[in-house]
Amino acid sequence: MRAKNEDLHGNVPDQCSVALVLIDVINDMEFGSGAALLSNALPAARRLADLRRRAKEAGVPVIYVNDNFGKWRSDFRRQLGHVLEDGVRGQPIAELLRPDEKDYFVLKAKHSGFFRTQLDLLIDYLKVKTLVLTGFTTDNCVLFTASDAYMRDLNLIVPTDCVAATRMEDHERALEHMVRVLDVTAVESTGIDFDALIEQPGTVQRG
Amino acid sequence: MRAKNEDLHGNVPDQCSVALVLIDVINDMEFGSGAALLSNALPAARRLADLRRRAKEAGVPVIYVNDNFGKWRSDFRRQLGHVLEDGVRGQPIAELLRPDEKDYFVLKAKHSGFFRTQLDLLIDYLKVKTLVLTGFTTDNCVLFTASDAYMRDLNLIVPTDCVAATRMEDHERALEHMVRVLDVTAVESTGIDFDALIEQPGTVQRG
Amino acid sequence: MRAKNEDLHGNVPDQCSVALVLIDVINDMEFGSGAALLSNALPAARRLADLRRRAKEAGVPVIYVNDNFGKWRSDFRRQLGHVLEDGVRGQPIAELLRPDEKDYFVLKAKHSGFFRTQLDLLIDYLKVKTLVLTGFTTDNCVLFTASDAYMRDLNLIVPTDCVAATRMEDHERALEHMVRVLDVTAVESTGIDFDALIEQPGTVQRG
Amino acid sequence: MRAKNEDLHGNVPDQCSVALVLIDVINDMEFGSGAALLSNALPAARRLADLRRRAKEAGVPVIYVNDNFGKWRSDFRRQLGHVLEDGVRGQPIAELLRPDEKDYFVLKAKHSGFFRTQLDLLIDYLKVKTLVLTGFTTDNCVLFTASDAYMRDLNLIVPTDCVAATRMEDHERALEHMVRVLDVTAVESTGIDFDALIEQPGTVQRG
Repeated sequence: MRAKNEDLHGNVPDQCSVALVLIDVINDMEFGSGAALLSNALPAARRLADLRRRAKEAGVPVIYVNDNFGKWRSDFRRQLGHVLEDGVRGQPIAELLRPDEKDYFVLKAKHSGFFRTQLDLLIDYLKVKTLVLTGFTTDNCVLFTASDAYMRDLNLIVPTDCVAATRMEDHERALEHMVRVLDVTAVESTGIDFDALIEQPGTVQRG
Repeated sequence: MRAKNEDLHGNVPDQCSVALVLIDVINDMEFGSGAALLSNALPAARRLADLRRRAKEAGVPVIYVNDNFGKWRSDFRRQLGHVLEDGVRGQPIAELLRPDEKDYFVLKAKHSGFFRTQLDLLIDYLKVKTLVLTGFTTDNCVLFTASDAYMRDLNLIVPTDCVAATRMEDHERALEHMVRVLDVTAVESTGIDFDALIEQPGTVQRG
Repeated sequence: MRAKNEDLHGNVPDQCSVALVLIDVINDMEFGSGAALLSNALPAARRLADLRRRAKEAGVPVIYVNDNFGKWRSDFRRQLGHVLEDGVRGQPIAELLRPDEKDYFVLKAKHSGFFRTQLDLLIDYLKVKTLVLTGFTTDNCVLFTASDAYMRDLNLIVPTDCVAATRMEDHERALEHMVRVLDVTAVESTGIDFDALIEQPGTVQRG
Repeated sequence: MRAKNEDLHGNVPDQCSVALVLIDVINDMEFGSGAALLSNALPAARRLADLRRRAKEAGVPVIYVNDNFGKWRSDFRRQLGHVLEDGVRGQPIAELLRPDEKDYFVLKAKHSGFFRTQLDLLIDYLKVKTLVLTGFTTDNCVLFTASDAYMRDLNLIVPTDCVAATRMEDHERALEHMVRVLDVTAVESTGIDFDALIEQPGTVQRG
């Protein structure tokens, strides 16, 4: 339908070498291990809310990469409405991390944010080279997404207090794997200085 | 986030060997050649509205594959709202083809419905083998999508009165190319019997 | 197996904004329409041999994108051996366009050179922005590949005397489509100045 | 070039619900940790040679998924020649696991066997539903490939004595992750009965 490829750029004004990615944070958590996950995820969401605020102040694009939870007829805003309004476990997290009009979102159907989604294209148009990966769970969708990002030669930073898993042991082993195999820089979120990152990708202080 | 892959199936109850695909029908047509396209697209939309009704009666899934028009922060329902409510050229078409709660939708960022989208996965889960391709424009996004579908070994049917292009000549040449190179069956929409297609994929009567 | 992503770079020393792509030129042509195609393809191969020589003089990487012809156990050199030594129709073309040790090759299983192949990665590592597309047939694998290249925002040049199809009419219509829809620059091969192209991508003289 | 998609089938006569995949076994191991890896990989290669022999007796297709090691101008047979003839560390493994004319091979440029390769298509044409994953290293290319296979809903079996890593601890943790997150069945290779697997995918005995 589009006459020229360049049309795409017209609506993607932001370009930034860094992006903050929130994985599966809009989630009702209404499954077996949901309560256990929530107890780890809620503190992470509080830290992530602060990190997201700082990212936006620095002009860093915020991308929600969220499961469609098999609801191919749904969309991100409907998913958000469900989690905010239906009295589900994930509500306090969604309230902390409610996206605004300037945030981007990408629906995924499987574990990795890159598998059959528009994330590749969005990152390309934003000219992102460094991803700050956050969300749930450390050892599943975050790890899948980090693995795919690594194969795409992206720089990866994971703030360890902004990701969570059901079991602490799995969280820690996944982080160790990311650092050792995927060249992930793992730091506390307070160690991330977005202005410095934009100027010199890869610069993070060990928190 | 998802514990098991099978969860995906839980929310995709419909399986059908045939799907009706509507390409870029939710479109404001507010671009240079939009008025010329509209004069061809509106009659096609009327025929397509009837075809869509018959597809739904036969239990054939209806998939809207729609450009995100560079609006990575938008979603399909917002795009639909824009076309229905902002007094744009494409409004009468959107009114004829307004999706309902049972329809599926897939956002694309580029010309082909398969390029960096979830269409592959949706077709796989629905167990679709035959696509009935409709929408705009015949020589651009419909042709791109048909080419990618052909490489995936899908059976392709294009109802010639349910696709349209800005210029009739381009429409006709694109159809000829699809028939000759992509093994597309080109028929009038009235020649499509969905019940027969489901029973015996590939069976269409030349209208 | 690989400890670092950077290892990949170590063996891809060449970087160039332009690449010459030869599509399905190593082909036995032992199929129904092969004789008809050969009569158009052989003159094109002669022009292409000259264009390839000039590309190499200018330091432009030459990439063979070739069908595996369903022989998943074969490789490009074996395919080359078959066409050169088994007395097949395509032999004179393979002799004209025999690859050397510095050329790259990518095997494809379907029509587009980008579909489930390493072409995306190779282009990325070579930092190519402009593809000069050549080979057979204009209205099939060349068109499929051009369509996919266009969706990847690559600049496209097609030397009209270095592509061929079975029927001249199909050749011409495919070229018209590429120019109109895919922003292809169609020129005679003698109009391509690789040095100028490298300096200023997109600069070609209408031959 | 290809007139009909079905041509592809003509040269892929084998169909089998199970395939044995050998990842990066043709490898010179001439890198820093190569000696340490070799001491774990050589015993695994001996077990794998036996498993490969049994797979072939049962008519199970054998697929070599091998790194191109950045040599985009090379191919699998040349890589094999290098490892067999140049006096490198990986020679004894290549001798144990030398492919024959009936084996399939897929070149990869990155860690996962599925990333920008023909593996998806080959599996599809062979109608494979269950992959037996083997090779090196457990915590890198095997894990990357297993993760991508899991997202494609394939059944996964990993014979624990036919994969190896540089450090035993990393090997074991990667296996635990595969079992817990990727639904991998981890067994000793002697527990794999290919005839039973073909009849009833998923049936393996804990060795």
